[in-house]
Amino acid sequence: MAVYSLSFSPICLSQLVLQLAICFNIQQIFNFSLVFVTVDMLKTPDHQVAGHEAGVGKLGPLVDDSGRFYKPLQGDQRGSEEVAFYESFSSNTNIPEQIRKFFPVYYGTKVMKASTGSDHPHIVLQDLTSASPNPSVMDIKIGSRTWGPEASDAYIAKCLKKDRESTSTPLGFRISGLQVYTGEESGFYKPDRDYMRKTGLDDVKLILRNFVSSNPSSETGQGPGPDCSLVSYVYGGPNGILAQLVELKTWFEDQTMYHFHACSLLFMFDQRLTLEGARSNAVVKLIDFAHVTDGNGVIDHNFLGGLCSLIKFISNIVAEANDHTGTNGEVEV
Amino acid sequence: MAVYSLSFSPICLSQLVLQLAICFNIQQIFNFSLVFVTVDMLKTPDHQVAGHEAGVGKLGPLVDDSGRFYKPLQGDQRGSEEVAFYESFSSNTNIPEQIRKFFPVYYGTKVMKASTGSDHPHIVLQDLTSASPNPSVMDIKIGSRTWGPEASDAYIAKCLKKDRESTSTPLGFRISGLQVYTGEESGFYKPDRDYMRKTGLDDVKLILRNFVSSNPSSETGQGPGPDCSLVSYVYGGPNGILAQLVELKTWFEDQTMYHFHACSLLFMFDQRLTLEGARSNAVVKLIDFAHVTDGNGVIDHNFLGGLCSLIKFISNIVAEANDHTGTNGEVEV
Repeated sequence: MAVYSLSFSPICLSQLVLQLAICFNIQQIFNFSLVFVTVDMLKTPDHQVAGHEAGVGKLGPLVDDSGRFYKPLQGDQRGSEEVAFYESFSSNTNIPEQIRKFFPVYYGTKVMKASTGSDHPHIVLQDLTSASPNPSVMDIKIGSRTWGPEASDAYIAKCLKKDRESTSTPLGFRISGLQVYTGEESGFYKPDRDYMRKTGLDDVKLILRNFVSSNPSSETGQGPGPDCSLVSYVYGGPNGILAQLVELKTWFEDQTMYHFHACSLLFMFDQRLTLEGARSNAVVKLIDFAHVTDGNGVIDHNFLGGLCSLIKFISNIVAEANDHTGTNGEVEV
Repeated sequence: MAVYSLSFSPICLSQLVLQLAICFNIQQIFNFSLVFVTVDMLKTPDHQVAGHEAGVGKLGPLVDDSGRFYKPLQGDQRGSEEVAFYESFSSNTNIPEQIRKFFPVYYGTKVMKASTGSDHPHIVLQDLTSASPNPSVMDIKIGSRTWGPEASDAYIAKCLKKDRESTSTPLGFRISGLQVYTGEESGFYKPDRDYMRKTGLDDVKLILRNFVSSNPSSETGQGPGPDCSLVSYVYGGPNGILAQLVELKTWFEDQTMYHFHACSLLFMFDQRLTLEGARSNAVVKLIDFAHVTDGNGVIDHNFLGGLCSLIKFISNIVAEANDHTGTNGEVEV
């Protein structure tokens, strides 16, 4: 463990170590601390809505029964940068406790049998959806710009094209994927990736409503539209998603330690628990830290702007629901 | 006035009318309401710190003795877009009164003898610096991105280059120019445009301090640095620049009518009045609306992000000043 304990706080040194590990001799560097997880305990996640998926000969995340999520390190700089962020963040004493809850718990890295069958280093994280059998999940990539100022011209050009073709540039965020549990028989509403790639402003408004509805649909302008029946439990209320986003915003107005390029916010809730319980069980988490850079004493204005835009969309939905139902006390934002 | 009164609220139609006016027959369209201002009343502004300057054969703004500022319409789409914005904004009943004060008063357009000697349409505005003989002025272009999503590829490439080479991309704003009055003998501290073009993070920190100091200097790391002697009068306090920026931020978190690409914030104060009076006379104004577009129901996350970044820089300076002086009540933000 000597390599890790030396210096994981400074992002750059840990990046270097991991880059070397990945490029040259993964096993030699990592095998000092390996507990190889046997393959039969692992499976591909049931509730992944965006990002790389595991498949035959394809690297992707795995989960086990104990509530851990194994994310394979990407072979280029991204993998080492993501580990560097988790190491820095988990040991950073300047993170307020109420903010730490927005990040997955980090358990270190582990070389283990990957979804491809060969050994590969993984980031070991809390499996965010393990507590619910049928979670509704939405992945929203935050920021009008998904590249950092130090990125290469080629990488910037590639990101800029995606940002302009998606809603990232105009709205400050894009919805990468979602699934909404609609009941035992109907199962999940889960639009395919092709649909998600083509979403515009009106689709985003519809999707954000679909997420809290019992009748989600990708059809616009037909029928009564999504019923938003869960809006006050999921988005509204003192523990709802809107209140959590506002809490996160307050931190982003002040924190100058990290810039979260191309990060996503994950929204999750369990419909059954939501309907049974008085309190919202909706959870907001930040994920995907492969492009986090040092803040250098500047706030992450790109993330903050996108977050504020998302907050405005969601608060509009909450306000409309209040107008329709005359609800007053239930949704406090 | 029929052309104007028809339809200036929708931005696009007014743009079209003005585009036609500029391209084809300016005088014929505008001469119905012209009061030609005689040349001897007009002069170039004394306190311009950024933007196009009037010169021999060069179009630039003019001012008169009655407190009006004449900005020549740029011959391409920018001129018509700026007029369209002023027309839309000045007749927009959804602008709160406390927000209207952040915008220059608009008096319409006028064809008049330009700085080049020929007739040209001008936007007639309040001359923001006319009330003070020796105003300290700073021009800060807000937003990490100075182009709108609908701009052409060539225009985006040009802006992106400038944004990346300046502090716009990393900080969310760039300081375009400033002048600081330092006294009768010393006059104004006014760094040249070459210096301004090369400013990085440390220069921005220095400049923001210089603006409220009696000893501004472009030299970093030499001597005690700027004294920030006016910080509590100019940035701090209930009427200071920081409080005004926070008020503006609250509006930007909510307003979805306009997106202010490549706009600037102008900070102004009169050192003499500041030292004489108990209340701050610092003023914040938004200027330069040639690239404003419809918000389409989305907040201006790009402007808001840059504004929040600027607020953080200035609140750091105010907080440091409080720490040094032990001041508590003077600066309330």
